[in-house]
Amino acid sequence: MKAYLILCLILCPAWLQAQHTPEKRVVQYVNPFIGTGAVDTNSLSGSNIPGPTTPFGFVQLSPDTRDAPDDPASGYDYNDKTIVGFSHTHLSGTGVADLFDVLLMPTQGEVKLSPGKSQVSRSGYRSTFSHQQETARPGYYQVLLQDYGINAELTATAHTGMHRYTFPASTQSHIVIDLDHSLNKKRGYWECRIIDAELKVINNHTLEGYRIITGWASLRKVYFHAEFSKPFDNVVMANGNNTPYPTTLLNGTALKAALNFSTTDKEQVLVKVALSAVSIDNAKMNMAAELPGWDFDNISRQCADNWEKELSKIKIEGTPEQKQIFYTGLYHAFTQPNNIADVNGDYQATDLTIGNAPDKVQYSTFSLWDTYRAAHPLYTLLQPERTAGFINTMIRQYKTYGYLPIWQLWGEENYCMIGNHAIPVIVDAVLKGIPGINAQDAYEAIKASSVTEHPGSPFAAWEKYGYIPEDIESQSVSISVEMAYDDWCVAQLARKLGNTADYNHFMERSAFYKNLYNVKTGFFQAKNKDGNWVTPFNPLSYGGNGGSPYTEANAWQYSWYVPQNVPGLINLMGGNKAFTAKLDTFFTLANKPGDVNGNASGFIGQYAHGNEPSHHIAYLYDYAGEPWKTQYYVSKVLNELYNNSSSGYAGNEDCGQMSAWYIFSSMGFYPVNPANGIYAIGSPILKAAAITLPNGKTFSVSVKNPGKPNIYIQSVKLNGKPYTKTYITQNDIISGGRLEFIMGTKPNKSWGITPAGVPPVWGYNN
Amino acid sequence: MKAYLILCLILCPAWLQAQHTPEKRVVQYVNPFIGTGAVDTNSLSGSNIPGPTTPFGFVQLSPDTRDAPDDPASGYDYNDKTIVGFSHTHLSGTGVADLFDVLLMPTQGEVKLSPGKSQVSRSGYRSTFSHQQETARPGYYQVLLQDYGINAELTATAHTGMHRYTFPASTQSHIVIDLDHSLNKKRGYWECRIIDAELKVINNHTLEGYRIITGWASLRKVYFHAEFSKPFDNVVMANGNNTPYPTTLLNGTALKAALNFSTTDKEQVLVKVALSAVSIDNAKMNMAAELPGWDFDNISRQCADNWEKELSKIKIEGTPEQKQIFYTGLYHAFTQPNNIADVNGDYQATDLTIGNAPDKVQYSTFSLWDTYRAAHPLYTLLQPERTAGFINTMIRQYKTYGYLPIWQLWGEENYCMIGNHAIPVIVDAVLKGIPGINAQDAYEAIKASSVTEHPGSPFAAWEKYGYIPEDIESQSVSISVEMAYDDWCVAQLARKLGNTADYNHFMERSAFYKNLYNVKTGFFQAKNKDGNWVTPFNPLSYGGNGGSPYTEANAWQYSWYVPQNVPGLINLMGGNKAFTAKLDTFFTLANKPGDVNGNASGFIGQYAHGNEPSHHIAYLYDYAGEPWKTQYYVSKVLNELYNNSSSGYAGNEDCGQMSAWYIFSSMGFYPVNPANGIYAIGSPILKAAAITLPNGKTFSVSVKNPGKPNIYIQSVKLNGKPYTKTYITQNDIISGGRLEFIMGTKPNKSWGITPAGVPPVWGYNN
Repeated sequence: MKAYLILCLILCPAWLQAQHTPEKRVVQYVNPFIGTGAVDTNSLSGSNIPGPTTPFGFVQLSPDTRDAPDDPASGYDYNDKTIVGFSHTHLSGTGVADLFDVLLMPTQGEVKLSPGKSQVSRSGYRSTFSHQQETARPGYYQVLLQDYGINAELTATAHTGMHRYTFPASTQSHIVIDLDHSLNKKRGYWECRIIDAELKVINNHTLEGYRIITGWASLRKVYFHAEFSKPFDNVVMANGNNTPYPTTLLNGTALKAALNFSTTDKEQVLVKVALSAVSIDNAKMNMAAELPGWDFDNISRQCADNWEKELSKIKIEGTPEQKQIFYTGLYHAFTQPNNIADVNGDYQATDLTIGNAPDKVQYSTFSLWDTYRAAHPLYTLLQPERTAGFINTMIRQYKTYGYLPIWQLWGEENYCMIGNHAIPVIVDAVLKGIPGINAQDAYEAIKASSVTEHPGSPFAAWEKYGYIPEDIESQSVSISVEMAYDDWCVAQLARKLGNTADYNHFMERSAFYKNLYNVKTGFFQAKNKDGNWVTPFNPLSYGGNGGSPYTEANAWQYSWYVPQNVPGLINLMGGNKAFTAKLDTFFTLANKPGDVNGNASGFIGQYAHGNEPSHHIAYLYDYAGEPWKTQYYVSKVLNELYNNSSSGYAGNEDCGQMSAWYIFSSMGFYPVNPANGIYAIGSPILKAAAITLPNGKTFSVSVKNPGKPNIYIQSVKLNGKPYTKTYITQNDIISGGRLEFIMGTKPNKSWGITPAGVPPVWGYNN
Repeated sequence: MKAYLILCLILCPAWLQAQHTPEKRVVQYVNPFIGTGAVDTNSLSGSNIPGPTTPFGFVQLSPDTRDAPDDPASGYDYNDKTIVGFSHTHLSGTGVADLFDVLLMPTQGEVKLSPGKSQVSRSGYRSTFSHQQETARPGYYQVLLQDYGINAELTATAHTGMHRYTFPASTQSHIVIDLDHSLNKKRGYWECRIIDAELKVINNHTLEGYRIITGWASLRKVYFHAEFSKPFDNVVMANGNNTPYPTTLLNGTALKAALNFSTTDKEQVLVKVALSAVSIDNAKMNMAAELPGWDFDNISRQCADNWEKELSKIKIEGTPEQKQIFYTGLYHAFTQPNNIADVNGDYQATDLTIGNAPDKVQYSTFSLWDTYRAAHPLYTLLQPERTAGFINTMIRQYKTYGYLPIWQLWGEENYCMIGNHAIPVIVDAVLKGIPGINAQDAYEAIKASSVTEHPGSPFAAWEKYGYIPEDIESQSVSISVEMAYDDWCVAQLARKLGNTADYNHFMERSAFYKNLYNVKTGFFQAKNKDGNWVTPFNPLSYGGNGGSPYTEANAWQYSWYVPQNVPGLINLMGGNKAFTAKLDTFFTLANKPGDVNGNASGFIGQYAHGNEPSHHIAYLYDYAGEPWKTQYYVSKVLNELYNNSSSGYAGNEDCGQMSAWYIFSSMGFYPVNPANGIYAIGSPILKAAAITLPNGKTFSVSVKNPGKPNIYIQSVKLNGKPYTKTYITQNDIISGGRLEFIMGTKPNKSWGITPAGVPPVWGYNN
């Protein structure tokens, strides 16, 4: 104990020690309203939710301002003026909506359960609200429902939501339960439909039920068990537009109930709702395990404590705004993937059977096209145990489904976006030695996912042509360059496991990106089966999610994606000078066609920080001898494209990726290749950061003269020694140590430009 | 042994003893083509299937002549000229299509898996066939697929289908597996959609997969494990209209695969396919338990033996045609309800969780509006153990769903038709003392189902108005008279259990039929909430399934439905003379409006034997002193509205009800009230019948001068004594005994007309 204290006094900066006191809890810096709404028509909502959730928890209990959420996918828009209720599951930060299960809403007066078709008209129990009477912090949300004078407070455990409603006096107080609330049933890309639902009154303070729903996730079974602190006098229910009537049981597809009470002034009614994807009995078991009592404040405190534990793994010094952005980002990154297994490990598998996870966790919501880039590398640093859980979930999915997740929701594949980016996630984790993953099982899964054709992955064509022909599969350029990267990852694990034949084969495939490089234009361009370039070609022209060679991007943005071999890309483009000159143009060419994709935003020239294809590009100057330009553009993004408003992200937060970019970059480094253990150095903006590693060691960053206008690195020390490489390695971090930057207003063009200082293709594991 | 022989020689008719020799097996009389197709535009298909199934088995493996079955619901129409393949699950005799899971089809030459949208164009592997090269008997189906010269033979165990395909020589022999084959996805009443499906090659002779589908059953999960006697050379698969390609795994929603072989001339390839509603592992377990080997002929023989065991519970003498109709009817009656539990008892419950049935059976396909009338009374006589299984399944459904099945398919409620006719089924079984049913649980379930409002059952209105107002719920007359009957059944079990208050309450409700009797017109007519008759009223006018007070019938047909109190109905109608005069008109009034419902057929005047509302009516003369008219019309129906052709039923066979009518009536009696243990006597047409009862006793019927023109009863003896009642009781049957008829060409108008001879309201249990 004494030795530890001395060690700490020696190794830990004074500010870090100070953070141990309660008033310095980092959780205070989380502002759940960041990312909840665009401030003007030129910005995007992060599509985040303001309501409470536990780290990686099943339940996200949050207000919905939309009857039939669609865009923003969170169901809550900071610009909206009314709230329809509080539903228990949400996606935070995605571009597509789903979940919104078991909506509760307290009301008073006449209650209209069936005000017409619920998907088209204003709900009969909606209330106006004001941000002046709304609070959100980790583990707590509060809003005054102005139409009724009801104060609503929310908190959550992993599998339960807890509500505390403070009513005015009335003989007509109600709590509405709406099982029909869902993503927009009319949205075109998929067809949401409730297949079956049930509401059942168990006794005068208990309600149970379920709904079976098909939507973005192909089939979800959502069971709940709800208890009320005050017995209700009676219950009316309705199915669809039927007239509500008193009953204790209703089966149907569009179920709502109103539980009716008499309340005295300021009377509090508490409700706790446990969920399960398996059965009502399991929902009940989840409640018994996590929320047997009624102490709302204690549950809220526990939830905040859980967040403090997770978020304080990194302690930072910086401006108040930086702390808000940083810790809210970490909060968003740790909101998902979500453990949808019950407390006993039961979960719904991809084939819709019920499995039991030996480690009691089965994760859902893998937005992998986004998160493999930086969010998962962040998890490997701070959440190794959960990383093993993520990967074991993925391997279980492979075992029933035949290949790894692409975009997984509620245990099911929705084939959103492109690539097979579970592969870099798994390879990175195995190569980093994350415990609890069977490397052979992992390799079997990633290899099968690289040879078994499935939607978006025409491997036979890939092998035959050396590229994906656009006339076989649209989005062919984006798929080709990302598939080449995934193949490189497969090769690395093959090598690690001594499988030379596979290593050679997948390394060969990993170079296929070259086959789509058009030396005449200097861009990756689509070819057809006949080998001819697809014409006409306009590098500014945007693609969406099909119908163009580029995915939510243009040729400018997709011509930088060779993270497995940046030197190879530089070579293709004519060497360092030509490469950096092209990057210069990229960051300054303002022209945009009329059809910029809705996901593209946060522009610096053609760079679009609001969507993932751009995320690594500012760091590429590091590889070509002009690291000060990396420093310039990284600091520009950090300072201009993040803020602590409701529009704090340049685009959808994307399940932690947008945040992870900030978290890494604000500390000064970023995993350009998320599976090679190399972090390119950018431009730190924090004054200091200290990462408490799972092995107990600390990796700290300190910055002299941080912040604008001191955006340029003057010099760096690693563990007290001058350091001139433009990268650090995973080993540098996990060994613990000190990275010290001295910043200034002018570039130090002699720093980081020797060939040995440039980030290598393959790093610590080489 | 010796004593038994002597007893048998004394008690059993010589013809019955002769039946014990193999060549006299009753199974030979089953003609599975009966009911498979209308012979002209004036007749209906029974909607039966010709393919093999075990008694009450999960699998019904049968040819489909329709790509997207709709009408006939069986998927096979005897009038069609081509077969699309052999799918493993079918409804036999229903008016609505569903199931059709896992279709296999052997082909040769070029195989077209994706000939365009599969629901609108001819399948690429369809073949012509001829009834001259087609065979069907219990446990066996054979057809020559003329396009390919492939002979296909089918047999089945409870959970598996077995195929034997004899190919000509070819390097291009194929077996197609089609998981997209389903009921018509465009049918208007419900929306069929495949939510998820998978095909997975396990090794070169094993294929597994599943499909999750919503249709008439709201959600079915169908898992399969298939083994092939010959390794396939390769497999191509396609999803929807995608180009097929070689692969070993495919996920999607519209999956097909072609397994490719080289075959020598007359080479046989066997396939066995096991199903489970729970998991692939369970499908595999089912196969291991039931079909570990490859002996097709032995499996076929076992299946026939199982049928012989069940069908020979009644031995009859009669014409060859009568035997075909009778035993095919019994075969159809025993085709469902189907045990959809796996061999270990696992099943999918109504709430889509997985349950485990302690008795290893969970029954599906309860077409109760049809089958409560005579099929279930037949099951209580011949299948008491399965009857307990049916009822315990129903009680389990109540426990998760809150009320008993109405029309249950694959464990789910589809609310087809009206009433709560699980109630008479359960009450009848409990009152008859069928072992294995907990009477208290049963009563809890039937009472809950009689007070908990649910679709089609507005009990609050029923209690408030004493009838169902048409402006609250359409089909109000049909619902009211049938609800009154169900209430009477509830009352009987209440009395049995000593619950006088409930008895009185439900007896009061059981008399509500009177409130819709319009003395001015002499018909049951609809009233609105305001108490006024709904106008205009035309007793000939047909209703369908909503929009009219009558369900698939008219006022003529629905004005006879008071089986719980026929004397009460007679009284309402003005006494015996007025009653029988009205019956006379009913049976002779030929007028039909243009809008006769598609389900109405088999007309004798307004009597429509093709649908269930008429089924008891010919027997009503027995109650009003003119039993010879019962004899006249019953024999007319038996002789004219049943035959052994593909159009052998006057309408849909309706899951055993149409057959049960024949089985009872041909032996001379019928359960007009299916829950009072009373069978009204009609006009036997068989020469003899002997029912081997579960208690080992035999109840035999013998008829002197059977058949046209001897349609009238001259005299009757029961156990050797003259018998003048127009009914027998359940006790008469289960005690064993002999019922002897002497028939003649002229009515004996003095038989059966004393008040004591008329069937009582309540019988053996009174």
